[in-house]
Amino acid sequence: MAETETTTEPRHPDSSRRSERSRRAIYEAALDLVTEVGYARTTIEGIASRAGVGKQTIYRWWPSKAAVLLEAFLDLVTPVDPAHGAGFPDTGDLEADLKAVLRASVDELTDPRYEGPTRALAAAGIVDETVGAEFLEKLLDPGLRLYTERLEAAQEAGEADPGIDPRIATELFVGPLLHRWLLRTLPLTHDYTDRIVEYALYGLRPRG
Amino acid sequence: MAETETTTEPRHPDSSRRSERSRRAIYEAALDLVTEVGYARTTIEGIASRAGVGKQTIYRWWPSKAAVLLEAFLDLVTPVDPAHGAGFPDTGDLEADLKAVLRASVDELTDPRYEGPTRALAAAGIVDETVGAEFLEKLLDPGLRLYTERLEAAQEAGEADPGIDPRIATELFVGPLLHRWLLRTLPLTHDYTDRIVEYALYGLRPRG
Repeated sequence: MAETETTTEPRHPDSSRRSERSRRAIYEAALDLVTEVGYARTTIEGIASRAGVGKQTIYRWWPSKAAVLLEAFLDLVTPVDPAHGAGFPDTGDLEADLKAVLRASVDELTDPRYEGPTRALAAAGIVDETVGAEFLEKLLDPGLRLYTERLEAAQEAGEADPGIDPRIATELFVGPLLHRWLLRTLPLTHDYTDRIVEYALYGLRPRG
Repeated sequence: MAETETTTEPRHPDSSRRSERSRRAIYEAALDLVTEVGYARTTIEGIASRAGVGKQTIYRWWPSKAAVLLEAFLDLVTPVDPAHGAGFPDTGDLEADLKAVLRASVDELTDPRYEGPTRALAAAGIVDETVGAEFLEKLLDPGLRLYTERLEAAQEAGEADPGIDPRIATELFVGPLLHRWLLRTLPLTHDYTDRIVEYALYGLRPRG
Protein backbone atom coordinates (compact mmCIF):
# COMPACT_ATOMS: atom_id res chain seq x y z
CA MET A 1 0.00 0.00 0.00
CA ALA A 2 2.78 2.43 0.95
CA GLU A 3 4.46 1.67 -2.37
CA THR A 4 1.28 2.40 -4.32
CA GLU A 5 0.90 5.71 -2.54
CA THR A 6 4.45 6.64 -3.45
CA THR A 7 4.01 5.85 -7.13
CA THR A 8 0.74 7.79 -7.43
CA GLU A 9 2.22 10.84 -5.75
CA PRO A 10 2.71 13.78 -8.14
CA ARG A 11 6.24 13.92 -9.44
CA HIS A 12 6.17 17.72 -9.71
CA PRO A 13 4.82 19.41 -6.60
CA ASP A 14 4.67 22.77 -8.40
CA SER A 15 2.49 21.36 -11.16
CA SER A 16 0.27 19.75 -8.52
CA ARG A 17 -0.18 23.08 -6.75
CA ARG A 18 -0.98 24.71 -10.08
CA SER A 19 -3.57 22.01 -10.76
CA GLU A 20 -5.16 22.54 -7.36
CA ARG A 21 -5.31 26.30 -8.01
CA SER A 22 -6.95 25.68 -11.39
CA ARG A 23 -9.43 23.26 -9.88
CA ARG A 24 -10.49 25.79 -7.25
CA ALA A 25 -10.73 28.56 -9.88
CA ILE A 26 -12.94 26.28 -12.02
CA TYR A 27 -15.23 25.45 -9.06
CA GLU A 28 -15.61 29.11 -8.22
CA ALA A 29 -16.25 30.14 -11.84
CA ALA A 30 -18.83 27.35 -12.27
CA LEU A 31 -20.77 28.34 -9.13
CA ASP A 32 -20.68 32.06 -9.93
CA LEU A 33 -21.79 31.49 -13.49
CA VAL A 34 -24.69 29.16 -12.69
CA THR A 35 -25.90 31.67 -10.10
CA GLU A 36 -25.77 34.55 -12.58
CA VAL A 37 -27.12 33.01 -15.78
CA GLY A 38 -28.76 29.75 -14.68
CA TYR A 39 -27.95 26.16 -15.50
CA ALA A 40 -29.08 26.15 -19.13
CA ARG A 41 -26.86 29.07 -20.15
CA THR A 42 -23.80 27.93 -18.20
CA THR A 43 -21.27 26.37 -20.62
CA ILE A 44 -17.88 24.69 -20.31
CA GLU A 45 -16.48 27.53 -22.45
CA GLY A 46 -17.92 30.15 -20.11
CA ILE A 47 -16.52 28.40 -17.03
CA ALA A 48 -13.08 28.05 -18.66
CA SER A 49 -12.95 31.67 -19.72
CA ARG A 50 -13.98 32.93 -16.28
CA ALA A 51 -11.55 30.59 -14.50
CA GLY A 52 -8.71 31.65 -16.81
CA VAL A 53 -8.00 28.10 -18.02
CA GLY A 54 -8.28 26.41 -21.40
CA LYS A 55 -11.49 24.49 -21.95
CA GLN A 56 -9.41 21.36 -22.62
CA THR A 57 -8.32 21.52 -18.97
CA ILE A 58 -11.95 21.16 -17.94
CA TYR A 59 -12.69 18.42 -20.47
CA ARG A 60 -9.63 16.50 -19.23
CA TRP A 61 -10.95 16.43 -15.68
CA TRP A 62 -14.73 16.26 -16.10
CA PRO A 63 -16.92 14.54 -18.69
CA SER A 64 -19.74 17.15 -18.66
CA LYS A 65 -21.03 20.47 -17.41
CA ALA A 66 -23.24 18.64 -14.92
CA ALA A 67 -20.19 16.81 -13.53
CA VAL A 68 -18.20 20.03 -12.96
CA LEU A 69 -21.12 21.75 -11.30
CA LEU A 70 -21.93 18.77 -9.12
CA GLU A 71 -18.35 18.50 -7.88
CA ALA A 72 -18.07 22.25 -7.33
CA PHE A 73 -21.29 22.08 -5.38
CA LEU A 74 -20.28 19.08 -3.26
CA ASP A 75 -17.02 20.85 -2.47
CA LEU A 76 -19.01 23.88 -1.35
CA VAL A 77 -21.50 22.15 0.93
CA THR A 78 -19.54 19.28 2.45
CA PRO A 79 -17.52 21.22 5.04
CA VAL A 80 -20.49 22.86 6.76
CA ASP A 81 -23.50 20.62 6.30
CA PRO A 82 -23.89 18.11 9.11
CA ALA A 83 -26.14 16.07 6.83
CA HIS A 84 -23.05 15.45 4.68
CA GLY A 85 -19.64 14.22 5.68
CA ALA A 86 -19.90 14.63 9.42
CA GLY A 87 -22.93 12.32 9.51
CA PHE A 88 -26.20 12.67 11.41
CA PRO A 89 -25.86 13.15 15.16
CA ASP A 90 -27.20 10.41 17.42
CA THR A 91 -27.18 11.68 21.01
CA GLY A 92 -30.05 9.34 21.92
CA ASP A 93 -32.46 12.31 21.79
CA LEU A 94 -34.24 12.20 18.43
CA GLU A 95 -35.98 15.54 18.86
CA ALA A 96 -32.75 17.38 19.72
CA ASP A 97 -30.84 15.72 16.88
CA LEU A 98 -33.47 16.56 14.27
CA LYS A 99 -33.66 20.16 15.46
CA ALA A 100 -29.87 20.53 15.31
CA VAL A 101 -29.62 19.17 11.76
CA LEU A 102 -32.54 21.24 10.47
CA ARG A 103 -31.15 24.41 12.09
CA ALA A 104 -27.81 23.79 10.35
CA SER A 105 -29.65 23.26 7.05
CA VAL A 106 -31.52 26.56 7.55
CA ASP A 107 -28.18 28.34 8.09
CA GLU A 108 -26.77 26.81 4.95
CA LEU A 109 -29.78 27.46 2.73
CA THR A 110 -30.00 31.10 3.81
CA ASP A 111 -26.24 31.75 3.46
CA PRO A 112 -25.76 33.95 0.36
CA ARG A 113 -22.74 31.89 -0.76
CA TYR A 114 -24.88 28.76 -1.11
CA GLU A 115 -28.25 30.20 -1.95
CA GLY A 116 -27.52 31.20 -5.58
CA PRO A 117 -25.99 27.95 -6.84
CA THR A 118 -28.38 25.81 -4.80
CA ARG A 119 -31.40 27.54 -6.34
CA ALA A 120 -29.92 27.35 -9.86
CA LEU A 121 -29.26 23.62 -9.57
CA ALA A 122 -32.64 22.90 -7.98
CA ALA A 123 -34.41 24.81 -10.77
CA ALA A 124 -32.42 22.93 -13.43
CA GLY A 125 -33.34 19.56 -11.93
CA ILE A 126 -37.01 20.51 -11.68
CA VAL A 127 -37.38 21.07 -15.42
CA ASP A 128 -34.72 18.64 -16.72
CA GLU A 129 -35.23 15.02 -15.65
CA THR A 130 -31.66 13.94 -16.50
CA VAL A 131 -30.08 16.73 -14.47
CA GLY A 132 -32.57 16.04 -11.67
CA ALA A 133 -31.67 12.34 -11.59
CA GLU A 134 -27.95 13.08 -11.40
CA PHE A 135 -28.27 15.56 -8.56
CA LEU A 136 -30.71 13.29 -6.75
CA GLU A 137 -28.32 10.36 -6.85
CA LYS A 138 -25.15 12.22 -5.92
CA LEU A 139 -26.39 14.99 -3.69
CA LEU A 140 -29.90 14.55 -2.34
CA ASP A 141 -30.29 10.82 -1.73
CA PRO A 142 -27.17 10.48 0.45
CA GLY A 143 -28.57 13.22 2.71
CA LEU A 144 -32.03 11.65 2.86
CA ARG A 145 -30.51 8.28 3.76
CA LEU A 146 -28.91 9.80 6.86
CA TYR A 147 -32.32 10.96 8.10
CA THR A 148 -33.82 7.55 7.38
CA GLU A 149 -31.04 5.73 9.24
CA ARG A 150 -31.42 8.06 12.24
CA LEU A 151 -35.16 7.33 12.31
CA GLU A 152 -34.49 3.58 12.12
CA ALA A 153 -32.13 3.90 15.10
CA ALA A 154 -34.91 5.79 16.93
CA GLN A 155 -37.34 2.97 16.18
CA GLU A 156 -34.89 0.44 17.66
CA ALA A 157 -34.38 2.67 20.70
CA GLY A 158 -38.14 2.98 21.25
CA GLU A 159 -38.13 6.70 20.39
CA ALA A 160 -40.22 6.29 17.22
CA ASP A 161 -43.20 4.09 16.35
CA PRO A 162 -41.94 0.81 14.83
CA GLY A 163 -44.89 0.83 12.40
CA ILE A 164 -43.86 3.96 10.49
CA ASP A 165 -41.93 3.89 7.22
CA PRO A 166 -38.76 5.87 8.04
CA ARG A 167 -38.18 6.87 4.41
CA ILE A 168 -41.62 8.48 4.21
CA ALA A 169 -41.21 10.02 7.68
CA THR A 170 -37.98 11.65 6.48
CA GLU A 171 -40.03 13.79 4.12
CA LEU A 172 -42.02 15.27 7.01
CA PHE A 173 -38.80 17.09 7.96
CA VAL A 174 -37.07 17.86 4.66
CA GLY A 175 -40.32 18.61 2.78
CA PRO A 176 -41.39 21.66 4.82
CA LEU A 177 -37.78 22.90 4.90
CA LEU A 178 -37.43 22.84 1.11
CA HIS A 179 -40.99 24.05 0.51
CA ARG A 180 -40.53 27.24 2.50
CA TRP A 181 -37.06 27.86 1.12
CA LEU A 182 -37.72 27.11 -2.57
CA LEU A 183 -41.08 28.84 -2.77
CA ARG A 184 -40.19 31.72 -0.38
CA THR A 185 -43.59 31.49 1.31
CA LEU A 186 -42.40 32.83 4.69
CA PRO A 187 -39.00 33.35 6.36
CA LEU A 188 -37.03 30.15 6.89
CA THR A 189 -36.02 30.28 10.56
CA HIS A 190 -34.83 28.00 13.35
CA ASP A 191 -38.14 28.59 15.10
CA TYR A 192 -39.98 27.25 12.05
CA THR A 193 -37.94 24.05 11.78
CA ASP A 194 -38.17 23.51 15.56
CA ARG A 195 -41.99 23.62 15.32
CA ILE A 196 -41.93 21.25 12.32
CA VAL A 197 -39.92 18.70 14.37
CA GLU A 198 -42.32 18.98 17.32
CA TYR A 199 -45.46 18.71 15.18
CA ALA A 200 -44.09 15.73 13.24
CA LEU A 201 -43.01 13.86 16.38
CA TYR A 202 -46.05 14.54 18.57
CA GLY A 203 -48.73 14.96 15.89
CA LEU A 204 -51.35 17.62 15.30
CA ARG A 205 -54.21 15.84 17.10
CA PRO A 206 -55.28 17.08 20.52
CA ARG A 207 -52.85 15.87 23.17
CA GLY A 208 -54.34 13.86 25.95
CA MET B 1 -79.11 44.27 -11.71
CA ALA B 2 -80.79 42.73 -14.75
CA GLU B 3 -80.38 46.02 -16.63
CA THR B 4 -76.68 46.18 -15.76
CA GLU B 5 -76.20 42.69 -17.12
CA THR B 6 -77.88 43.68 -20.36
CA THR B 7 -75.75 46.79 -20.88
CA THR B 8 -72.46 44.96 -20.19
CA GLU B 9 -73.34 42.21 -22.66
CA PRO B 10 -71.14 42.29 -25.79
CA ARG B 11 -72.79 44.19 -28.63
CA HIS B 12 -71.20 41.94 -31.27
CA PRO B 13 -71.51 38.26 -30.36
CA ASP B 14 -69.27 37.25 -33.29
CA SER B 15 -66.43 39.51 -32.17
CA SER B 16 -66.83 38.24 -28.60
CA ARG B 17 -66.58 34.64 -29.78
CA ARG B 18 -63.49 35.54 -31.78
CA SER B 19 -61.94 37.15 -28.70
CA GLU B 20 -62.67 34.07 -26.62
CA ARG B 21 -61.07 31.87 -29.28
CA SER B 22 -57.98 34.13 -29.32
CA ARG B 23 -57.76 34.11 -25.55
CA ARG B 24 -57.84 30.31 -25.44
CA ALA B 25 -55.25 30.09 -28.23
CA ILE B 26 -52.99 32.48 -26.30
CA TYR B 27 -53.36 30.45 -23.07
CA GLU B 28 -52.53 27.25 -24.90
CA ALA B 29 -49.55 28.77 -26.74
CA ALA B 30 -48.19 30.28 -23.51
CA LEU B 31 -48.39 26.97 -21.60
CA ASP B 32 -46.89 24.95 -24.48
CA LEU B 33 -44.06 27.41 -24.96
CA VAL B 34 -43.08 27.68 -21.29
CA THR B 35 -43.03 23.88 -21.09
CA GLU B 36 -40.80 23.58 -24.13
CA VAL B 37 -38.29 26.41 -23.66
CA GLY B 38 -38.71 27.46 -20.02
CA TYR B 39 -39.83 30.73 -18.49
CA ALA B 40 -36.77 32.83 -19.36
CA ARG B 41 -36.96 32.11 -23.10
CA THR B 42 -40.75 32.46 -23.38
CA THR B 43 -41.60 35.84 -24.96
CA ILE B 44 -44.79 37.73 -25.79
CA GLU B 45 -43.68 37.59 -29.45
CA GLY B 46 -43.28 33.81 -29.27
CA ILE B 47 -46.69 33.35 -27.66
CA ALA B 48 -48.35 35.64 -30.23
CA SER B 49 -46.74 33.86 -33.17
CA ARG B 50 -47.71 30.43 -31.88
CA ALA B 51 -51.27 31.52 -31.07
CA GLY B 52 -51.66 33.12 -34.52
CA VAL B 53 -52.48 36.57 -33.12
CA GLY B 54 -50.70 39.93 -33.29
CA LYS B 55 -48.56 40.72 -30.28
CA GLN B 56 -50.60 43.93 -29.81
CA THR B 57 -53.57 41.69 -28.99
CA ILE B 58 -51.62 40.25 -26.07
CA TYR B 59 -50.32 43.63 -24.90
CA ARG B 60 -53.90 44.96 -24.99
CA TRP B 61 -55.11 42.28 -22.58
CA TRP B 62 -52.12 41.63 -20.33
CA PRO B 63 -49.38 43.93 -18.95
CA SER B 64 -46.58 41.35 -18.94
CA LYS B 65 -45.44 37.86 -19.81
CA ALA B 66 -45.85 36.86 -16.16
CA ALA B 67 -49.47 38.04 -16.23
CA VAL B 68 -50.35 35.98 -19.34
CA LEU B 69 -48.71 32.87 -17.95
CA LEU B 70 -50.31 33.28 -14.56
CA GLU B 71 -53.78 33.63 -16.05
CA ALA B 72 -53.23 30.73 -18.45
CA PHE B 73 -52.09 28.68 -15.52
CA LEU B 74 -55.01 29.61 -13.26
CA ASP B 75 -57.40 28.77 -16.09
CA LEU B 76 -55.72 25.37 -16.40
CA VAL B 77 -55.75 24.35 -12.75
CA THR B 78 -58.94 25.86 -11.37
CA PRO B 79 -61.45 23.38 -12.80
CA VAL B 80 -59.84 20.28 -11.30
CA ASP B 81 -58.00 21.32 -8.16
CA PRO B 82 -60.21 21.16 -5.09
CA ALA B 83 -57.70 23.43 -3.35
CA HIS B 84 -58.80 26.17 -5.77
CA GLY B 85 -62.27 27.33 -6.65
CA ALA B 86 -64.29 24.52 -5.15
CA GLY B 87 -62.78 25.19 -1.70
CA PHE B 88 -61.48 22.78 0.88
CA PRO B 89 -63.91 20.06 1.97
CA ASP B 90 -65.09 20.09 5.57
CA THR B 91 -66.94 16.85 6.26
CA GLY B 92 -66.08 17.06 9.96
CA ASP B 93 -63.38 14.38 9.43
CA LEU B 94 -60.03 16.19 9.15
CA GLU B 95 -58.06 13.08 8.21
CA ALA B 96 -60.44 12.15 5.37
CA ASP B 97 -60.56 15.73 4.07
CA LEU B 98 -56.78 16.12 4.02
CA LYS B 99 -56.35 12.78 2.27
CA ALA B 100 -58.94 13.69 -0.37
CA VAL B 101 -57.32 17.06 -1.15
CA LEU B 102 -53.81 15.63 -1.28
CA ARG B 103 -54.92 12.76 -3.53
CA ALA B 104 -56.48 15.27 -5.91
CA SER B 105 -53.24 17.30 -5.87
CA VAL B 106 -51.25 14.16 -6.69
CA ASP B 107 -53.53 13.49 -9.67
CA GLU B 108 -53.08 17.04 -10.89
CA LEU B 109 -49.30 17.20 -10.42
CA THR B 110 -48.77 13.90 -12.22
CA ASP B 111 -51.12 14.74 -15.12
CA PRO B 112 -48.92 15.37 -18.20
CA ARG B 113 -51.04 18.41 -19.20
CA TYR B 114 -50.16 20.21 -15.96
CA GLU B 115 -46.75 18.81 -15.20
CA GLY B 116 -44.77 20.74 -17.84
CA PRO B 117 -46.06 24.26 -17.18
CA THR B 118 -46.16 23.73 -13.41
CA ARG B 119 -42.51 22.68 -13.36
CA ALA B 120 -41.48 25.56 -15.66
CA LEU B 121 -43.22 28.15 -13.47
CA ALA B 122 -41.91 26.64 -10.23
CA ALA B 123 -38.35 26.67 -11.60
CA ALA B 124 -38.71 30.30 -12.73
CA GLY B 125 -39.92 31.38 -9.29
CA ILE B 126 -37.11 29.51 -7.55
CA VAL B 127 -34.36 31.48 -9.30
CA ASP B 128 -36.22 34.78 -9.90
CA GLU B 129 -37.51 36.45 -6.74
CA THR B 130 -39.94 38.77 -8.59
CA VAL B 131 -41.56 35.94 -10.53
CA GLY B 132 -41.65 33.86 -7.34
CA ALA B 133 -43.42 36.65 -5.42
CA GLU B 134 -46.06 37.06 -8.11
CA PHE B 135 -46.87 33.36 -8.32
CA LEU B 136 -46.81 33.07 -4.55
CA GLU B 137 -49.36 35.84 -4.12
CA LYS B 138 -51.74 34.83 -6.90
CA LEU B 139 -51.39 31.07 -7.01
CA LEU B 140 -49.77 29.50 -4.00
CA ASP B 141 -50.91 31.58 -1.02
CA PRO B 142 -54.65 31.25 -1.76
CA GLY B 143 -54.24 27.45 -1.74
CA LEU B 144 -52.22 27.47 1.47
CA ARG B 145 -54.86 29.66 3.14
CA LEU B 146 -57.52 27.01 2.50
CA TYR B 147 -55.45 24.41 4.37
CA THR B 148 -54.86 26.84 7.22
CA GLU B 149 -58.56 27.64 7.51
CA ARG B 150 -59.47 23.95 7.50
CA LEU B 151 -56.97 23.33 10.31
CA GLU B 152 -58.41 26.26 12.28
CA ALA B 153 -61.89 24.75 11.92
CA ALA B 154 -60.44 21.43 13.14
CA GLN B 155 -58.99 23.20 16.19
CA GLU B 156 -62.41 24.67 16.98
CA ALA B 157 -64.04 21.27 16.52
CA GLY B 158 -61.51 19.62 18.85
CA GLU B 159 -59.94 17.60 16.02
CA ALA B 160 -56.57 19.39 16.23
CA ASP B 161 -54.48 20.65 19.13
CA PRO B 162 -55.39 24.29 19.88
CA GLY B 163 -51.72 25.03 20.62
CA ILE B 164 -50.42 24.41 17.12
CA ASP B 165 -49.84 27.16 14.55
CA PRO B 166 -52.12 26.15 11.65
CA ARG B 167 -50.01 28.01 9.08
CA ILE B 168 -46.90 26.04 10.04
CA ALA B 169 -48.90 22.80 10.27
CA THR B 170 -50.08 23.39 6.68
CA GLU B 171 -46.51 22.87 5.51
CA LEU B 172 -46.41 19.36 7.02
CA PHE B 173 -48.85 18.41 4.24
CA VAL B 174 -47.86 20.53 1.24
CA GLY B 175 -44.10 20.34 1.94
CA PRO B 176 -43.71 16.57 1.46
CA LEU B 177 -46.07 16.68 -1.55
CA LEU B 178 -44.00 19.33 -3.35
CA HIS B 179 -40.67 17.87 -2.21
CA ARG B 180 -41.33 14.47 -3.74
CA TRP B 181 -42.84 15.92 -6.87
CA LEU B 182 -40.33 18.71 -7.57
CA LEU B 183 -37.23 16.69 -6.73
CA ARG B 184 -38.55 13.36 -8.14
CA THR B 185 -37.13 11.42 -5.19
CA LEU B 186 -39.71 8.60 -5.34
CA PRO B 187 -43.08 8.09 -7.07
CA LEU B 188 -45.77 10.52 -5.94
CA THR B 189 -48.73 8.30 -5.07
CA HIS B 190 -51.97 8.37 -3.09
CA ASP B 191 -50.46 5.87 -0.69
CA TYR B 192 -47.61 8.29 0.02
CA THR B 193 -49.84 11.28 0.77
CA ASP B 194 -52.17 9.09 2.89
CA ARG B 195 -49.17 8.09 5.05
CA ILE B 196 -48.04 11.75 5.31
CA VAL B 197 -51.50 12.73 6.62
CA GLU B 198 -51.47 9.90 9.19
CA TYR B 199 -47.93 10.60 10.38
CA ALA B 200 -48.60 14.34 10.68
CA LEU B 201 -51.84 13.89 12.58
CA TYR B 202 -50.77 11.10 14.94
CA GLY B 203 -47.04 11.81 15.16
CA LEU B 204 -43.99 9.61 14.77
CA ARG B 205 -43.49 8.86 18.47
CA PRO B 206 -44.46 5.44 19.81
CA ARG B 207 -48.21 5.21 20.26
CA GLY B 208 -49.38 4.35 23.72
